[in-house]
Amino acid sequence: MSFDANMGDFTPQEIAAVYRLMAMRRDMRHFLPDPLDDALICRLLGAAHMAPSVGLMQPWRFIRVRDPELRASIHALVEAERIKTARALAEREDEFMRLKVEGILDCGELLVAALADGRESHVFGRRTMPEMDLASVACAIQNLWLAARAENVGMGWVSLFDPEALRRLIRMPEGSRPVAVLCLGYVPAFYPKPMLEEAKWAHRLDLKSMLHTDYWSDGGDLPEVESR
Amino acid sequence: MSFDANMGDFTPQEIAAVYRLMAMRRDMRHFLPDPLDDALICRLLGAAHMAPSVGLMQPWRFIRVRDPELRASIHALVEAERIKTARALAEREDEFMRLKVEGILDCGELLVAALADGRESHVFGRRTMPEMDLASVACAIQNLWLAARAENVGMGWVSLFDPEALRRLIRMPEGSRPVAVLCLGYVPAFYPKPMLEEAKWAHRLDLKSMLHTDYWSDGGDLPEVESR
Repeated sequence: MSFDANMGDFTPQEIAAVYRLMAMRRDMRHFLPDPLDDALICRLLGAAHMAPSVGLMQPWRFIRVRDPELRASIHALVEAERIKTARALAEREDEFMRLKVEGILDCGELLVAALADGRESHVFGRRTMPEMDLASVACAIQNLWLAARAENVGMGWVSLFDPEALRRLIRMPEGSRPVAVLCLGYVPAFYPKPMLEEAKWAHRLDLKSMLHTDYWSDGGDLPEVESR
Repeated sequence: MSFDANMGDFTPQEIAAVYRLMAMRRDMRHFLPDPLDDALICRLLGAAHMAPSVGLMQPWRFIRVRDPELRASIHALVEAERIKTARALAEREDEFMRLKVEGILDCGELLVAALADGRESHVFGRRTMPEMDLASVACAIQNLWLAARAENVGMGWVSLFDPEALRRLIRMPEGSRPVAVLCLGYVPAFYPKPMLEEAKWAHRLDLKSMLHTDYWSDGGDLPEVESR
């Protein structure tokens, strides 16, 4: 990878580190039990809070799960949905059941990320695209994920749950909605490739096949896209 | 900001650069017309493609808008929605109309980011949370945004449009859905603060007010959260 002469706020080494960080970030399911210290958690949540949001609405909320019983209840909710998902996958049921899809009981720190209630008052950028609030929360989670990886901390985003059941479990107000159970913690090792790629559940698509020029039906005309 | 002794893959300087990058990223509306070179665009799209996705479904698609007439048509769609949004904002209509909310005609490069069609076959992590496909696209866009800022390129995410009208304009297949018009390009300067904060449209919320411990109603118990 080569860079143009840098005229900006980041050095070539820093720019390279950003791409390397994105390439090394993984959706983790295997954790060490060591806790994360409060200052580190503050930095990670601070990274999330620096995310962009539609109309600057900042719709993200985070619940830090400290109570072991609550953690066990969240795990039970996820386990119930794991079984239902497996059944819905029909011929891939057995293959799915062999995957480790979460590390809720093992990770050092458990967070729930959610959409706040009262979002209907935010119209800017959402009149025709109300789901932009979720997009903002996802950007916050991606910031958290990247900051965690930079600090050598793994994260896994679990979405195998009934959102209404999780909302009630955490006593979230009506109109709010959980979007992620986030397992955070130190890890034995970061997977060299996405776990679902290693397990041959899915394969990486060629970026070129995902690009179009002007109209969807036209192929992209980008020069050679580097694979990372 | 202090860091623990680093035992990982990133140096303290690189970790600090990641946080600085997140703090300096802005939703830009003012651009210089200079084009971006193809190699740079490839790097930015490559960053997007390194994003996490639910069940590794990689639902993101990108349309690069090269035709000036198509760009003008997209601008017209956004302008129509800007007027409708202003009216929906009622007492804030005039204030909204004074904001510059997009740089579609000015920026060096225009992309449309979209959700692919055929997503209903992806059940993993989506049986109860179908919107996780959008979350994945948002993570890809956040990667692109951060990579762009690192490379001294500004980006603005515009969601002021009728998604069905934009879908038809770009000849996207049924079942696909545009999620962002992305203005990319060099900028006269990056805003020191979010433009909507500078314009006093909205203010930054205190992170502490967005954190809960165990249950939503309980306050967070984090130590002093650094403001960045």
